[in-house]
Amino acid sequence: MKYFVTGGAGFIASNLVDRLLFNGEQVVVYDNFSTGIEEFLTESKKNKRFKLIRGDLLDQKKLGRAMTGCDFVFHLAANADVRFGLNHPEKDLQQNTIATFNVLEAMRKNKIKKIAFSSTGSIYGEATVIPTPEDAPLPIQTSLYGSSKLSGEGLISSYCEGYGYQAWIFRFVSILGERYTHGHVFDFYKSLLKNPKELYVLGNGKQRKSYLYVQDCIDAIFFAITKSKDKVNIFNLGTNEYCCVNDSIGWITGYLGMKPKLKYSGGERGWIGDNPFIFLETKKIRKLGWKPKLTIEEAIIKTVKYLENNKQILGKR
Amino acid sequence: MKYFVTGGAGFIASNLVDRLLFNGEQVVVYDNFSTGIEEFLTESKKNKRFKLIRGDLLDQKKLGRAMTGCDFVFHLAANADVRFGLNHPEKDLQQNTIATFNVLEAMRKNKIKKIAFSSTGSIYGEATVIPTPEDAPLPIQTSLYGSSKLSGEGLISSYCEGYGYQAWIFRFVSILGERYTHGHVFDFYKSLLKNPKELYVLGNGKQRKSYLYVQDCIDAIFFAITKSKDKVNIFNLGTNEYCCVNDSIGWITGYLGMKPKLKYSGGERGWIGDNPFIFLETKKIRKLGWKPKLTIEEAIIKTVKYLENNKQILGKR
Repeated sequence: MKYFVTGGAGFIASNLVDRLLFNGEQVVVYDNFSTGIEEFLTESKKNKRFKLIRGDLLDQKKLGRAMTGCDFVFHLAANADVRFGLNHPEKDLQQNTIATFNVLEAMRKNKIKKIAFSSTGSIYGEATVIPTPEDAPLPIQTSLYGSSKLSGEGLISSYCEGYGYQAWIFRFVSILGERYTHGHVFDFYKSLLKNPKELYVLGNGKQRKSYLYVQDCIDAIFFAITKSKDKVNIFNLGTNEYCCVNDSIGWITGYLGMKPKLKYSGGERGWIGDNPFIFLETKKIRKLGWKPKLTIEEAIIKTVKYLENNKQILGKR
Repeated sequence: MKYFVTGGAGFIASNLVDRLLFNGEQVVVYDNFSTGIEEFLTESKKNKRFKLIRGDLLDQKKLGRAMTGCDFVFHLAANADVRFGLNHPEKDLQQNTIATFNVLEAMRKNKIKKIAFSSTGSIYGEATVIPTPEDAPLPIQTSLYGSSKLSGEGLISSYCEGYGYQAWIFRFVSILGERYTHGHVFDFYKSLLKNPKELYVLGNGKQRKSYLYVQDCIDAIFFAITKSKDKVNIFNLGTNEYCCVNDSIGWITGYLGMKPKLKYSGGERGWIGDNPFIFLETKKIRKLGWKPKLTIEEAIIKTVKYLENNKQILGKR
């Protein structure tokens, strides 16, 4: 099989590419390197079954040509920057909603009908049911990011109904692990390196969040694609637990042997649109036989270790 | 108050414009006349409090200038063509999703923070709960139209959270009445005029659908805006009943005194993405004191009478 991976130089997607190549598959990565990091593909580039195409998802023609001959699309490219969405509202529209439309149209031109999509738990807004199942009450959107991902899901599902596509849609919690390049562990670690004596925390530190280790995430994706064969297959991906921002700070500083003074910006939310409690119900994916290998604590420590050993990453953001 | 009405030359919006002018308000209509009909505004144009601007919602600059000085936006412009969405998938994206984004951005430039939006019961896809409440289980989208309207809702809600907007979102069933210009009553009446002996019906005639009279719809909109003051106010609009396509055919042909032979295309659905059972729970809007004045049967007859008296409309589609 020949797999097309959008945003293949990104954190999660580049790990997925490694897995696909390990499994003996052919892979075409399409990335504009707006946030992707080329060195994540260093090993892949040595593989004969790998091809890299530099291109933007808003370039419909190039995208259509690039997809020629592929059988399956992993659409993981996205503007994944939830927090600063309000500074440039057109970015989520273009890079998530319109880009997803372009991917679906390029598939139509190339007669490709299978797609896996990285959605997000953010589509649940401030969920009224926690842990939040896939069929939660229709949520009110609270972020441009979540809203644009829900638009992507809607487009994909409509193409399944209308053009006979088959889709696997994954609603991720925050993902951690090797090649992690943005998020609170990144920010805290970078800040602690500069000043181990003080740590500035957005919100009151009591926000409850969920995380998943990237390899567990990729295991789950393959479980779903292999074992779930509906027209539209939607899965929450996360561990069976959550933690507070303060727990996370304790694990990070404990591992690093630091005792910074904590300064809180205050309030239940770290920023406008931040969700004070994210915890997804993951019974559906567990029923397929998947379970995560790492706890949240283990995934956080693993991430800190990765950043320690790859400090050059800190300068790239 | 000065109201900005997108798609103001359309069926529902032009009726809304009449009501606003009747209430003594100032109205600016913005319409590209792609489907709007200028004679629907003939009376309005005589009113000093009315202004018509010809423009497209994809023309961001013109839209931004047109909105200057307005206090409240009714965003009713849309590609409302559910059935043929698959023939031109970019149309729903552009005219519904992107157009809604442009409206929200034009509001931001003009510091306007109140918006009412015509969404649709189609966002529920093939609902698992019937009658379907506003907080139904998160549906899988089955049409590009429904999907693009859900995208519009998501954008609007995110702007409420992020930029302090206040929104009223209305999920309509099919609307009937004066200035009705597309839908099954239109198609059936037009076909029966040509050939009263035979009527071609999409599907098996057993599809269960819901309808609402346009004046009842507009009453409901004003009830909601006046009485519901949350950040995001979402209301299903419909009557407390539904009917079969065959019921509707009986009422139409009975009124016209025709006995056509019925020919069915067959199947539960009239077309790909058609929903065989639409019935919305309308407790929420009823709680505000609203109730419809016409039954579905009365609204259908009223619509046939309108078409009888305005046969020139039949030639415009």
